[in-house]
Amino acid sequence: MQAVMTEAELMAFMRRAFAQVAEEFRVERLTADGIVMRLKVDDRHLRPGGTVSGPSIFALADVAVYLAILARIGPVALAVTTNGTVDFLRKPAAGVDLLAEARLLKLGRVLAVGDVLIRSEGSDAPVARSNMTYSIPPRREQF
Amino acid sequence: MQAVMTEAELMAFMRRAFAQVAEEFRVERLTADGIVMRLKVDDRHLRPGGTVSGPSIFALADVAVYLAILARIGPVALAVTTNGTVDFLRKPAAGVDLLAEARLLKLGRVLAVGDVLIRSEGSDAPVARSNMTYSIPPRREQF
Amino acid sequence: MQAVMTEAELMAFMRRAFAQVAEEFRVERLTADGIVMRLKVDDRHLRPGGTVSGPSIFALADVAVYLAILARIGPVALAVTTNGTVDFLRKPAAGVDLLAEARLLKLGRVLAVGDVLIRSEGSDAPVARSNMTYSIPPRREQF
Amino acid sequence: MQAVMTEAELMAFMRRAFAQVAEEFRVERLTADGIVMRLKVDDRHLRPGGTVSGPSIFALADVAVYLAILARIGPVALAVTTNGTVDFLRKPAAGVDLLAEARLLKLGRVLAVGDVLIRSEGSDAPVARSNMTYSIPPRREQF
Repeated sequence: MQAVMTEAELMAFMRRAFAQVAEEFRVERLTADGIVMRLKVDDRHLRPGGTVSGPSIFALADVAVYLAILARIGPVALAVTTNGTVDFLRKPAAGVDLLAEARLLKLGRVLAVGDVLIRSEGSDAPVARSNMTYSIPPRREQF
Repeated sequence: MQAVMTEAELMAFMRRAFAQVAEEFRVERLTADGIVMRLKVDDRHLRPGGTVSGPSIFALADVAVYLAILARIGPVALAVTTNGTVDFLRKPAAGVDLLAEARLLKLGRVLAVGDVLIRSEGSDAPVARSNMTYSIPPRREQF
Repeated sequence: MQAVMTEAELMAFMRRAFAQVAEEFRVERLTADGIVMRLKVDDRHLRPGGTVSGPSIFALADVAVYLAILARIGPVALAVTTNGTVDFLRKPAAGVDLLAEARLLKLGRVLAVGDVLIRSEGSDAPVARSNMTYSIPPRREQF
Repeated sequence: MQAVMTEAELMAFMRRAFAQVAEEFRVERLTADGIVMRLKVDDRHLRPGGTVSGPSIFALADVAVYLAILARIGPVALAVTTNGTVDFLRKPAAGVDLLAEARLLKLGRVLAVGDVLIRSEGSDAPVARSNMTYSIPPRREQF
């Protein structure tokens, strides 16, 4: 599953296709089997007690697997999430970003599946674990 | 599982504890085994193509089960989501709110589990299905 | 989603396609949006303490959604489970069968999604909740 | 999370507590953060077409996380699965065992969470991905 897009191309795609949220995230790097994404945590992501909101963590896992897929199949804006699951494991560390390490476990003709570990930057213990399934549109729709 | 809070008390609690997002949601009504919640869909929830974003749907399911629990055990702000899953089934209808129908399947000493069907207002076919698990803090911490 | 197979046809299909396990299950009845299936609980399904094993409950949910789908699209042995989730809620009642009530939430061209509530016969409180996703083979492969 | 039981002690515990199924599984080795378990695939696990049944794969993931937990907290037969999820990714290779690599992501006072990758022996591509949550009984009940 060789990448066909660079980190910079993924960021440009995200700014074009998801202008509303693109600034919250950053592609850190493509990996052999996935991607590392950053959530630039600020007040809008926080809940009372200083924890990062569940939907923000879901969004981070979702975008990480999405871009890990696009990096391999090209900028197919029509791939859609069909299932997303998050286990919330620990409260994030205060005042630091979250880093999501996503790996693709399957990239099929119809479905792609990835899992994600999310950690506070500088910590080893995972804040959340997630798995995401995407439906891949038929290739002819890409042209 | 008799409710110990009214719809108005739940709304007041949400505005106090989650001021940032409370305006996006409305408690429609408590039901025998759960709650009906509304997501007041506006531009911030939308993605290109007019679909409601995955994190917005996750947030709606999460808050619905959370308030369904609180309605039965009282305003325990410390209950935390431990697992959340969403199956995305259909694109929502354009220009209408989403309604989430949550039911509590278990309300134990330690864990509570609910499931949720989300529909576009005025439609029967579900847009998403979700299940959420909450960890309930020990009762002594509530006082 | 009109049924195109009867309960008896589903049972006959199951005995033909899954001879090894067919005797453990019984189609109770087709419903408007799903099916009710029975697990004939015996020693092989039990664990120490008299609880029904997790894999037995998974199997019951899986077969219930599978047959609910086949009842609507015909005997397509090639439909495969792509995701299965079970929340275990309560210990089953001793010495009685389990009944699974499955409903189809989506029956698409490519994916079908159902959810399931499992109860001990004669009890209201659910023993388990499940959701299952199936990949539907392209229609041309069915002929 | 230092292990307090050896592979041999885990196998002995499994034979004692789960005599019915113990022979199907083998502890391959404890790892730094989990365990590797083998499912000795035979006819009882197979479905038409030669695939390993979903419940068998669920059982393998379940026992792997269970023993990964027990290895760290000692032989607490009362730990119970509260949630189990499996994504089925590929058909297993014919005629070989399955190996499950489980890692513990959280081992808390009340809940433990692990994830699992399952592969056919000798293959790199995963057959299934799973996550399992266990409820840990209060320590006082262990004595």
